[in-house]
Amino acid sequence: MNRSDESLRRIVAQIRPADRASAEAVCRAFDGKTKPRGSLGELEGLASRIASIRRTTDLRPLQGAILVAAGDHGFASERVSAYPREVTGQMLRNFAAGGAAVNVLARENGARLLVIDAGVATSFEHPLIRRLSLGPGTENATRGPAMRREQALAGLADGVDLALELADEGVELVALGDMGIGNTTSASALCAALLPTDATAVCGRGTGIDDEGLERKIDAVRRALTVNEPDPGDPVSVLAAVGGFEIAVLTGVCLGAASRSLVVLLDGFVTGAAALVAARLCPVVVESMVASHRSPEPGHALTLAALGLRPLVDLGLRLGEGSGAALVLPLVNASLALLADMSTFAEAGVAEAHA
Amino acid sequence: MNRSDESLRRIVAQIRPADRASAEAVCRAFDGKTKPRGSLGELEGLASRIASIRRTTDLRPLQGAILVAAGDHGFASERVSAYPREVTGQMLRNFAAGGAAVNVLARENGARLLVIDAGVATSFEHPLIRRLSLGPGTENATRGPAMRREQALAGLADGVDLALELADEGVELVALGDMGIGNTTSASALCAALLPTDATAVCGRGTGIDDEGLERKIDAVRRALTVNEPDPGDPVSVLAAVGGFEIAVLTGVCLGAASRSLVVLLDGFVTGAAALVAARLCPVVVESMVASHRSPEPGHALTLAALGLRPLVDLGLRLGEGSGAALVLPLVNASLALLADMSTFAEAGVAEAHA
Repeated sequence: MNRSDESLRRIVAQIRPADRASAEAVCRAFDGKTKPRGSLGELEGLASRIASIRRTTDLRPLQGAILVAAGDHGFASERVSAYPREVTGQMLRNFAAGGAAVNVLARENGARLLVIDAGVATSFEHPLIRRLSLGPGTENATRGPAMRREQALAGLADGVDLALELADEGVELVALGDMGIGNTTSASALCAALLPTDATAVCGRGTGIDDEGLERKIDAVRRALTVNEPDPGDPVSVLAAVGGFEIAVLTGVCLGAASRSLVVLLDGFVTGAAALVAARLCPVVVESMVASHRSPEPGHALTLAALGLRPLVDLGLRLGEGSGAALVLPLVNASLALLADMSTFAEAGVAEAHA
Repeated sequence: MNRSDESLRRIVAQIRPADRASAEAVCRAFDGKTKPRGSLGELEGLASRIASIRRTTDLRPLQGAILVAAGDHGFASERVSAYPREVTGQMLRNFAAGGAAVNVLARENGARLLVIDAGVATSFEHPLIRRLSLGPGTENATRGPAMRREQALAGLADGVDLALELADEGVELVALGDMGIGNTTSASALCAALLPTDATAVCGRGTGIDDEGLERKIDAVRRALTVNEPDPGDPVSVLAAVGGFEIAVLTGVCLGAASRSLVVLLDGFVTGAAALVAARLCPVVVESMVASHRSPEPGHALTLAALGLRPLVDLGLRLGEGSGAALVLPLVNASLALLADMSTFAEAGVAEAHA
């Protein structure tokens, strides 16, 4: 994909509304299965939504890939995280070695894991890491834009390309994950600018900062928005002003995946912020998304509400790296197995409810 | 097991409190893993609880079995269900044929499925159905006890035996399921008697009855409690008065499983009522239980609160047959895989949080 506003408009134009007819056919199919009507609760709505995304009722458990994008953040200089900046790169090595939570969950649930270095300071070569070259981390957004507009567009284009590549390889669902010390600050700033709302409403404790750290975080978000004055009507400018390289890539993945009818399974707050940027570029992209879980970050609930998404689980997860999305993959696939494999009343010779 | 009050007392005496030391060791182990402290949320508490039940920190994904017990209910004559009574037996055939929701979920999640005919009117022989002989369904509890005390004790003993057999075969977790037209009425009556509370607080729409059906259900529960006057201090008498054969067996499974340090994974309202009876026979049995989901039945939330259990998911499931328990098996096992397989900060060379 060409890295320009024009090529971004081109991909956005390819995103269609989800297919209501398939969704309705799935609802009808569930009504014929051997169970009281509606008794599979949200699993029925989930399968129905996936049918609308995949534009078919012929569904089986999906071929899933977990895409974790990592990036370093200039915000880290503002001491907004409980962890030193080096941890982004160290965790990239942990992903490569297979020892992080998302590795365990990907293995446990039989999903492929793709790790993207979208711009980590202490980058390194490894066969399991896909290295993009957006820069060695963003600038400190409290002093000017986190990145140039061309970098934001390049990140979006890289994300689109990744999604198209996965679609070509037969992937049907992409679960999003993020890694980046300081990235809940970037996500908070994006949400504050785009929802829009005040920094205090969206900033949380991230990896576990104390009260003073939270004050610094809120202050950093406020200063970043004051210094950059991003225009909420131009989501690319907001992304460039206060976003992150991994968030730009994840936003592009949302768009590319939607253009190819892939299910986009969101993780927590940071992937939610990427989804929000994508939705502001192309509102209909939300119809391709499924929210896996609700994180305790206050900005996440607001973001999900703005996107109109209800998460499948609420387990207090706040790890990121796609862990929540990877965790719920079996629930997503269970809904499709039920649709495909349950007998109907007629097939099983079971009496239906009294009229 | 001998079918007497004395043998029941003997099994209850074998149930030990869960092992706190293992639980605490798991919490410490999670704190050393490459993630912010506590960031796996309730998954950490879940693994810790399982360690306390299994009395070890050396945990891997558990060998699970789903045990679905079916029984017919005299309450069905009171027109408390949206489905005709024959559906209990028809669903038993559906389980045998592999077409029900729990069959699909058991296959999808690699769990063994054991179906018990605890007392179905239209019983039949099938190699996949274990037939117990408590009777062709309970009596109508609005006119006298649903079963004799000896039948309740026999159901408990059968359940204990089933759990011991599973333990001997290497099963580490037993997920409970139920089937029986009219059995949410029986569960409602058990909860009303044992919590205790009024029938209106615990009766819900079950398989989907209308307003008039709900009135009939509340009235049937009230009449059953008035006619039988069961003594909440004697849980066996409550079970005999308003319980069901499948509920008696499931209660026995709870006790037998706890006596052998098996994890008991509850499903919805009916298995919750069985768990409540078990808890009144032996309060410490609750320490062996994990709640899978919260059903929309109003009595279920009250029962979980009385048991002090918080469910893993809340997806509006109201199907029974162990479907909710079978659904969350991957979440349970994910918590143990994370504990077993995630790298520590030291192993991965990742910096810890600032002091």
